[in-house]
Amino acid sequence: MQTLLNTVNQIFTTEQFLHEPRPLYEPIDYTLRLGGKRIRPLMLLAANRMFGDTDEAVRHAAIGIEMFHNFTLLHDDLMDRSPLRRGQPTVYRKWGDNTAILSGDTMFALAWQYFLKQPHERLHDILKCFNQTAIEVCEGQQYDMDFEQRNDTTLDEYMQMIRLKTAVLLAAALKIGALYAHAPEEDTEHLYQFGIHLGLAFQLQDDLLDAYGDTATFGKQTGQDIRDRKKTYLLHCALHLANSSQQKELQALFADVNGDEDARVVRVLQIYKELGIQPHVEEAIRQQFALAKEQLDAVQVEEIQKAPLQQLMETLLGRKK
Amino acid sequence: MQTLLNTVNQIFTTEQFLHEPRPLYEPIDYTLRLGGKRIRPLMLLAANRMFGDTDEAVRHAAIGIEMFHNFTLLHDDLMDRSPLRRGQPTVYRKWGDNTAILSGDTMFALAWQYFLKQPHERLHDILKCFNQTAIEVCEGQQYDMDFEQRNDTTLDEYMQMIRLKTAVLLAAALKIGALYAHAPEEDTEHLYQFGIHLGLAFQLQDDLLDAYGDTATFGKQTGQDIRDRKKTYLLHCALHLANSSQQKELQALFADVNGDEDARVVRVLQIYKELGIQPHVEEAIRQQFALAKEQLDAVQVEEIQKAPLQQLMETLLGRKK
Repeated sequence: MQTLLNTVNQIFTTEQFLHEPRPLYEPIDYTLRLGGKRIRPLMLLAANRMFGDTDEAVRHAAIGIEMFHNFTLLHDDLMDRSPLRRGQPTVYRKWGDNTAILSGDTMFALAWQYFLKQPHERLHDILKCFNQTAIEVCEGQQYDMDFEQRNDTTLDEYMQMIRLKTAVLLAAALKIGALYAHAPEEDTEHLYQFGIHLGLAFQLQDDLLDAYGDTATFGKQTGQDIRDRKKTYLLHCALHLANSSQQKELQALFADVNGDEDARVVRVLQIYKELGIQPHVEEAIRQQFALAKEQLDAVQVEEIQKAPLQQLMETLLGRKK
Repeated sequence: MQTLLNTVNQIFTTEQFLHEPRPLYEPIDYTLRLGGKRIRPLMLLAANRMFGDTDEAVRHAAIGIEMFHNFTLLHDDLMDRSPLRRGQPTVYRKWGDNTAILSGDTMFALAWQYFLKQPHERLHDILKCFNQTAIEVCEGQQYDMDFEQRNDTTLDEYMQMIRLKTAVLLAAALKIGALYAHAPEEDTEHLYQFGIHLGLAFQLQDDLLDAYGDTATFGKQTGQDIRDRKKTYLLHCALHLANSSQQKELQALFADVNGDEDARVVRVLQIYKELGIQPHVEEAIRQQFALAKEQLDAVQVEEIQKAPLQQLMETLLGRKK
């Protein structure tokens, strides 16, 4: 696990992202140097190493998957008008909308460039998996934006949205890592499903932390999802447990666009507390975690080979013993 | 040639672009149904047929290249704040900035999906060519935006910019078509260079029409490039022919952002006329046309096989006898 972290850090420290024209590549270099947890390249390399050694091609794929992820963040920040990313000004705030659009587009193209650097027997499958995922992530972002305008989304729709927006890219990183190692098809599929459940667990935990997390350690303002009218797992869970007057009040609070925002957030959080939704959400996270574990267990390699992924999963969900 | 046009029209008429979520795919369908000359798919198919029959894979590549081209138009229109495209409202005007960003991103991903539909012996080379081109087109757009802010661009810089922004995609369409037909490497390279010179000739002609074209047949307002502070071939040619007082006046007219725009355009066009730049620009177009012809001549197939490309070239440059 530590070796893996070192490898990933070394990959991103040594890679050169600055080229001409500078106004195009500086925001790309800036974005990739902001850091972050590098979860997707870690997953890709961990899945790859389960089946053997890591070669040059898979290192480039690790950069490609992170490049793609950062492209989506760059365009999402612009669309959501988010001022900060990892505590620093977002690209559109620093350089303007047009730079955010064009440098983002270039990052998407550069992601492909990394995947195409070396030939590989399974390259067609790898690229198809990456491409399908890219399309799904765009669809997930569209559903996310649409749902902010709707007040009748269902829990199923929400789960499908976060599957597309968050889970499929983790899943693809794992599957692609395994494909580079020539893993058998059933194992690449188990790892894909492992990534889906892990991604869902991760997103539900993120939803929970938004309402119950400590601002200092979580790094985000409490109740931001409520401010953004995100119909997260928490709201769907609350609506399910609420009596009809509580349901009406919650729906009114999420439809309200003119009232005092701080008062709205306080009241929604109060209702969540009254309904005791926290253990219900925690149970849902446990379920996804267990489903993920099942998929990892099914992969046909020695248990010792699975240790890094197991550890990564536990670190990601804050369950590291 | 007529067969080729029919094939391309049939491809785009029968292809289904509408999927769920509708808010994401409707602007994509709208953009592709606006029509246009479909020059890149025509080039791709024409280059392919020079060497043999057109199969399913190359039909998908023809859609892919047009999808990519339309993605760049969609994002360029947003960045340039262009209200109209082919006489219809642009996507950002019709659906908003966020839709233009995200539907554009999805079109870029869909372009890859078309290229990845079928396996092909030369697929890795095809995808590398497409990817390199995509990066170059982004770089070209960046230079174009940068040059609008600069008053010291050189003719070389301008030629390099239009090479990236316009010519490489025509060149790639031709090379990719030939790669699908398993053409020898020298021939794919000749076709690539043919596309570069054709693209340059095409852009120079576009520059000329902006100043001297008939608004009715050209479909654009005369002098739009002058309004947009585009330092086109015409300006560089004029600066080269001008005496020092004319040079100063031209530079002042392009630096001026507060004066009467209509008067600016009239005065710039008047100086162009005084300097008699038109025959000089026409000569540059003829040169690029001749260089293109040389490259096409060098392709090792029977002359009769080259007729459709020859015709396409002449139609594109309005030189059809």
